[in-house]
Amino acid sequence: SRDESLTITVADYNPEVCRRIKDQYGLSATQLDVADSKALTSAVKNSDLVIGAVPGSLGYAMLETVIRTKKDIVDISFFPEDPLALHQLAVDHGVTAVVDAGVAPGLSNLFIGRFQREYDPLDYFACYVGGLPRLRKWPFEYQSVFSPADVIEIYTRPVRMKIGGELVTLEALTELELIDLPRIGTLEAANTDGLRTLLSTVQVPNMLEKTLRYPGHFERMQLLRDTGFFSPEPMDIKGQSVAPLDVTSRLLFQAWRPEENGHDLTVMRIILSGLLNGRHITTTIDMFDEYDAVTHTTSMARTTGYTCAAVARLLMAGTYRDPGIRPLEYLGEDKEVYRLLLKDLAEWGIVFNIAQIAVED
Amino acid sequence: SRDESLTITVADYNPEVCRRIKDQYGLSATQLDVADSKALTSAVKNSDLVIGAVPGSLGYAMLETVIRTKKDIVDISFFPEDPLALHQLAVDHGVTAVVDAGVAPGLSNLFIGRFQREYDPLDYFACYVGGLPRLRKWPFEYQSVFSPADVIEIYTRPVRMKIGGELVTLEALTELELIDLPRIGTLEAANTDGLRTLLSTVQVPNMLEKTLRYPGHFERMQLLRDTGFFSPEPMDIKGQSVAPLDVTSRLLFQAWRPEENGHDLTVMRIILSGLLNGRHITTTIDMFDEYDAVTHTTSMARTTGYTCAAVARLLMAGTYRDPGIRPLEYLGEDKEVYRLLLKDLAEWGIVFNIAQIAVED
Repeated sequence: SRDESLTITVADYNPEVCRRIKDQYGLSATQLDVADSKALTSAVKNSDLVIGAVPGSLGYAMLETVIRTKKDIVDISFFPEDPLALHQLAVDHGVTAVVDAGVAPGLSNLFIGRFQREYDPLDYFACYVGGLPRLRKWPFEYQSVFSPADVIEIYTRPVRMKIGGELVTLEALTELELIDLPRIGTLEAANTDGLRTLLSTVQVPNMLEKTLRYPGHFERMQLLRDTGFFSPEPMDIKGQSVAPLDVTSRLLFQAWRPEENGHDLTVMRIILSGLLNGRHITTTIDMFDEYDAVTHTTSMARTTGYTCAAVARLLMAGTYRDPGIRPLEYLGEDKEVYRLLLKDLAEWGIVFNIAQIAVED
Repeated sequence: SRDESLTITVADYNPEVCRRIKDQYGLSATQLDVADSKALTSAVKNSDLVIGAVPGSLGYAMLETVIRTKKDIVDISFFPEDPLALHQLAVDHGVTAVVDAGVAPGLSNLFIGRFQREYDPLDYFACYVGGLPRLRKWPFEYQSVFSPADVIEIYTRPVRMKIGGELVTLEALTELELIDLPRIGTLEAANTDGLRTLLSTVQVPNMLEKTLRYPGHFERMQLLRDTGFFSPEPMDIKGQSVAPLDVTSRLLFQAWRPEENGHDLTVMRIILSGLLNGRHITTTIDMFDEYDAVTHTTSMARTTGYTCAAVARLLMAGTYRDPGIRPLEYLGEDKEVYRLLLKDLAEWGIVFNIAQIAVED
C-alpha cells in the first residue's frame, strides 16, 4: 500500500475490520462474503490482480471463482485441497494463479525450484521450518495466531514424503531430532505433512519437511494425541455427545494465545544435496526473522505477507506471467524472478544465509 | 477367610459380585446398598466386627451408621471427610473404629505412632509412597484400578503439611524431587495431601507426604492441570455445557487401565528423625511389594487388604481395644500391637527394611 502506483481495496467479512482498515491505513475497504461467488465475482471485476488470504476452508472455492473471472491471483490461504486440480481451468482462462506464496510452503518451494535447475541432479531436499514465540513459557513454549484445531491438524495428518523416489507415508511427529540453528540454539524437528505441491511438481527423489519447535513441545503434543485428546470422534460425557478435540481446541486456544505484542520468530533451514557442476555439494539455506517492534508486525505476517506482496508486484510488473496454477517452485525456475523476489525481501530485512560445502568422494 | 475360627459374610451392591464371591471363595454373600442405613444396620446386626471397604463417597455415612450399631469396625474406604469428627460418637457407643487401615494412610501412621513413643522428641516425619505398574508405558507410566477422577483429585487438592510446627498449605505436585529406592531405582516424588489424621493426632513439628511415580509422570500431569484439562468448571462446547475434567477422566480411564494380570508394585519409604536416647538418629523404613502371580493378587490389594485384615484379627482377638476413632498412629503406640501387626504382614511377605543412622553433632 506504500506503492503509489497501486490502488488497493481490502475486502473482509467483518465490517469492523473494514472500518479499521480505512481508519488506520486510509485504504478502500468493502464488506464481502468470499463464500458468495456472485458477490466475489462482482468485487474483483475492476481489479488487475487479486490477493487471496482467507481461512483455509474457504480458499479453494474462492480461488476457483477468481480464476473464472480471468483475474490473476496470488494466494496465501493454504487450503487443504490440491490447488493443481484447478491448473487446466487457470490455463483455459489465461490466469496466472500463484498459490502457497508464503514461507513454507512458499520460499521453500522457490529454493527447490531454483536449485533443481542448478543441480544435475538434485537428490535431496529437506525443509525445517517453524514459527515460535521469543519467550519460552512452560509447558508448550508455543503461541499461535491460528486456530489450535489447524495446528492439531498438522500434528495428526499423515505425512507424505519422498524416499528413494517413492512416496512414503509416515505418522505425524515421527523422527524427532534436535537441530542447532543460528541465533536460536537447539530446536527440535518432527515430520509434518508440508510438501504439498512439491510431491507432484518436482522430481527430486528424497524430499521431507519437518516442523521446528522448542525441544519438548512435540512430546507433549504426542502425549495429548496418544491419550485421545485430539480425537474428533464424539464420546458420551454425562449424556452429551462431545468430541475431545473440541474441548482440547478451546483449552489450547487459551494456552497458545500470544501475549500482547507477543514477540515471535520465524526460523527456516533448507538443505539441498546432489551433483553441482559434477561435484557432490550440499547447500544449506538459513533464515531467521523476528517481530518488528517498530511497526508491530509479527514475523509470521512479515515472512508470509511480504513474500506474497513481492510476488504480487512481480505479476503487476509483468515480470512473471505463466497461465496455470503456479506454486513458487515454478517462479524459482526463472533466475531473474528468483533474484528479484529475494531482493525485495531483503529490503524488508528478510535475508537468507546460503552456504555450500563440497562432500569429497 | 482361611481362618476357620471366623465366619465371613460379604456384602456388595452388585449381585454379580455376590455370586462370584460365593462361587469362587465359598463365602456367604448378600446384596446390600450401604447408602441405605436401615439395610446396613440390619446387615451387620449379627456381626462381631465390620470391615468397611466402600467407595470413598459412601464411607463417612457408612462408618457413622455402623458406629450407631455398636459394632467395632476396621475401615479402608479412605473417605474425604475427617473421620475424627465421629470420635465422640464412637466413644459414646463404646466402639473401636480403626480407620485408614491401609498402606499410607495406614502403615505409615503405624510407624509414626511407634517412633513418636521411642524418639524424644521426634522432629521430622516424611512418607514417600506410590503404587506403580511394573511395565513402564509412555506417556504416563502409570496404571490405576481407581477412578482417574480420584487420582486427579490427589493431584489437585491443596497439600497440608507441617513445617516448624506450623500448618503450611502448598499447591499439589510441588517440590518435585528424584529419589533412589531399593529394587526399583530412581523414582520422582511430589507433594500430595496425604497426612490426614496425623495433622491433628500427633505433635511432630515437621511432617510431609509425597507420592512416588516414575520420573516424568508428574510433569505430564502438571501439563494437563495447568492447561485446564482438570477443570471441573463447565465450558460451552458447541452449545453444550462440558467440564474438561469429565472428558479427561474418560480418556485417562483408558490410558491408565491395568493390563490383564497387570503386574503392579507398591513402594514406600518413611524417614523419621529426632533425638533417640539423646542422640540425633535418622530412621529409614523401606517397603517394596509386588503383584502375587500365584494368587493373582495385586500388590495394592495385598498391602492394603492384608493390613486391614491383620488389624481386624487383632480386634477380634481382643489384643487391641480402645473406643473412639483410631487411625493406626494409635495402634503404633502399643508396642505389642505394632509387633503383632508387622509379624502378621511378614507372613504374607510384606516386610520392612528398617535402618538407623546416627548424625554426629
